[in-house]
Amino acid sequence: MQTELSKTLGVEHAVFGFTPFPAVAAAISRAGGFGVLGAVRYTAPDELKRDLDWIEAHVDGRPYGLDVVMPAKKVEGVTEADVEAMIPESHRQFVKDTLTRYGVPELAEGETSGWRITGWMEQVARTQLDVAFDYPIKLLANALGSPPTDVIDRAHEQDVLVAALAGSARHARKHADAGIDVVVAQGYEAGGHTGEIASMVLTPEVVDAVDPLPVLAAGGIGSGRQVAAALALGAQGVWLGSIWLTTTEAELPSPRLIEKLFAAGSGDTVRSRALTGKPARQLRTEWTDAWDDPEGPGALPMPLQGLLVAEAVSRIQKYEVEPLLGTPVGQIVGRMNSERSVQAVFDDLTRGFEKAVDRVNRIAGRSTEQ
Amino acid sequence: MQTELSKTLGVEHAVFGFTPFPAVAAAISRAGGFGVLGAVRYTAPDELKRDLDWIEAHVDGRPYGLDVVMPAKKVEGVTEADVEAMIPESHRQFVKDTLTRYGVPELAEGETSGWRITGWMEQVARTQLDVAFDYPIKLLANALGSPPTDVIDRAHEQDVLVAALAGSARHARKHADAGIDVVVAQGYEAGGHTGEIASMVLTPEVVDAVDPLPVLAAGGIGSGRQVAAALALGAQGVWLGSIWLTTTEAELPSPRLIEKLFAAGSGDTVRSRALTGKPARQLRTEWTDAWDDPEGPGALPMPLQGLLVAEAVSRIQKYEVEPLLGTPVGQIVGRMNSERSVQAVFDDLTRGFEKAVDRVNRIAGRSTEQ
Repeated sequence: MQTELSKTLGVEHAVFGFTPFPAVAAAISRAGGFGVLGAVRYTAPDELKRDLDWIEAHVDGRPYGLDVVMPAKKVEGVTEADVEAMIPESHRQFVKDTLTRYGVPELAEGETSGWRITGWMEQVARTQLDVAFDYPIKLLANALGSPPTDVIDRAHEQDVLVAALAGSARHARKHADAGIDVVVAQGYEAGGHTGEIASMVLTPEVVDAVDPLPVLAAGGIGSGRQVAAALALGAQGVWLGSIWLTTTEAELPSPRLIEKLFAAGSGDTVRSRALTGKPARQLRTEWTDAWDDPEGPGALPMPLQGLLVAEAVSRIQKYEVEPLLGTPVGQIVGRMNSERSVQAVFDDLTRGFEKAVDRVNRIAGRSTEQ
Repeated sequence: MQTELSKTLGVEHAVFGFTPFPAVAAAISRAGGFGVLGAVRYTAPDELKRDLDWIEAHVDGRPYGLDVVMPAKKVEGVTEADVEAMIPESHRQFVKDTLTRYGVPELAEGETSGWRITGWMEQVARTQLDVAFDYPIKLLANALGSPPTDVIDRAHEQDVLVAALAGSARHARKHADAGIDVVVAQGYEAGGHTGEIASMVLTPEVVDAVDPLPVLAAGGIGSGRQVAAALALGAQGVWLGSIWLTTTEAELPSPRLIEKLFAAGSGDTVRSRALTGKPARQLRTEWTDAWDDPEGPGALPMPLQGLLVAEAVSRIQKYEVEPLLGTPVGQIVGRMNSERSVQAVFDDLTRGFEKAVDRVNRIAGRSTEQ
């Protein structure tokens, strides 16, 4: 499964795997794909350094990348405390009341939220980059618009390709103008932050909008048939996130959450602002329902909502409070029904891809011989 | 572009075109696809008869089909007047106020709403079927669940295949259990009534759920790349509706509406209950905004909403009141930018399909020779 982009990066298959787990990222690269470690959950540079060291030791010299969450526009002099101060008391009370209603225990004294997401703050993202550029990463992706120009320049000086996520053709063209190298077209059906345009429509639109830049299709892809479809739409590769969550190498902290993922159908996700304040696809839970309820206070804008719910999400996850327990995941969750190794997922993707190509050739009246 | 289903139906390309316009349906069949005439807008059996006669005279002996909107469950003894009586006065007032605010003129005295949609009522649909079964239709599709058993039996006696639309795998399995022959998997990005699962995810789910029944992919398809993608996902054909709206053969009553369709991007549609009371994708307008506004009265359930707004929609269309003027259409509207003949659309689809197959073969490392 070779495209110009996969050849440039020196990988066997044009399959890019985004994951917060170093063991998954390394396994994806070892399997012949391109593992991309999500950095947003790292608050301390040392932790990122430790995990990149681990990847280096386990990747067998294969290429890999890093995904940061960095705003293109600098917000000068705003501290986390300033942002905290903008959260209305009524919203804090709604969080408390909801947690109380479901009997969610408090964290132990001195215990801090492991899920506090501050990686979106520019100073945190920059510290992450200072660490990352000491490693031979081949791709730097940004989930929040184009990275600042100096970051793009620094990446290019070190022969690192820069990728950015886009949910519309207009958004993708802005990235291209900013000088990025790869666009990830993130469809409506994807997990995490998404727009409203589905992959079937978005992928070719973005491909045409930024031609000749390579486009990766993201959203709704978890089988070889879907890989073939994305490549037929003009993508130079696929970007998969959700499918790795239930692999053997993943380290989801909650067995009950894994069971919920196995049980969920493709209709059991929702695009909700509950997690970060921006619409992000995730498992639909009584927690997302509470925030999406028109009778409730509604989610705050980004980044307020993320700060508001950080501790609550930690408590829900730690104590595995079933009705509230969720995670960002795409509609492909309907096909995540048992634990498999990353290699098994890969074998399934490549076998399924070959069969889909056979199928399309038969329909086109062509020989299916290789 | 040949599949088992296209061979069964005796068409050259596995492209099914749904349209309310007889000239478009006939042109699709003449171009080597399978034209399906939507019957929901016909209130009088004679009009349907006239249009089927026209198709017979212009289809050069090629096969075609009919699409009705028929509830599986019979609602005994309910008349249109009974349903009208269930509409709250406050909703009627909201319609009046909105039309007044935009200065929408009244219809002329004695003029009735041409867009009054009563085809969903079982007696109307049955009258349509009595007409249709006198013609050599090859496929009968139902947009509202499986048709009643006696209708399926009657179709099968006349060698007519029965198709039903589904927005989920569960829905599709119910159709299969009811004895239908073909499932149309209608993705989130489609125009008209849709669910929330995007084609990339829905198509393979439905294919697996009803195997070995053939599945047509609907939603987001308007180019050859998208046709190739849908077939890679396992569909035995594609079902296109929106793309024909701006063809030369179509008879949209409003030049301004056509201009709006040309100008609209893929992000300019909305899944709204404004039209029928069920979520249906359509151009986003100030009319849909009014019904989707949480401060407003909100849309009534089906079939009340359709009756409530029928005359208003007729007035908006007749007088081409720009900000309110809309139509059901899918996200593919972003690619409907100029008038083309049905044959030109077909040529584009088949050429684009061949190029997409070439592309996927190159990526798979296979020869692209035919």
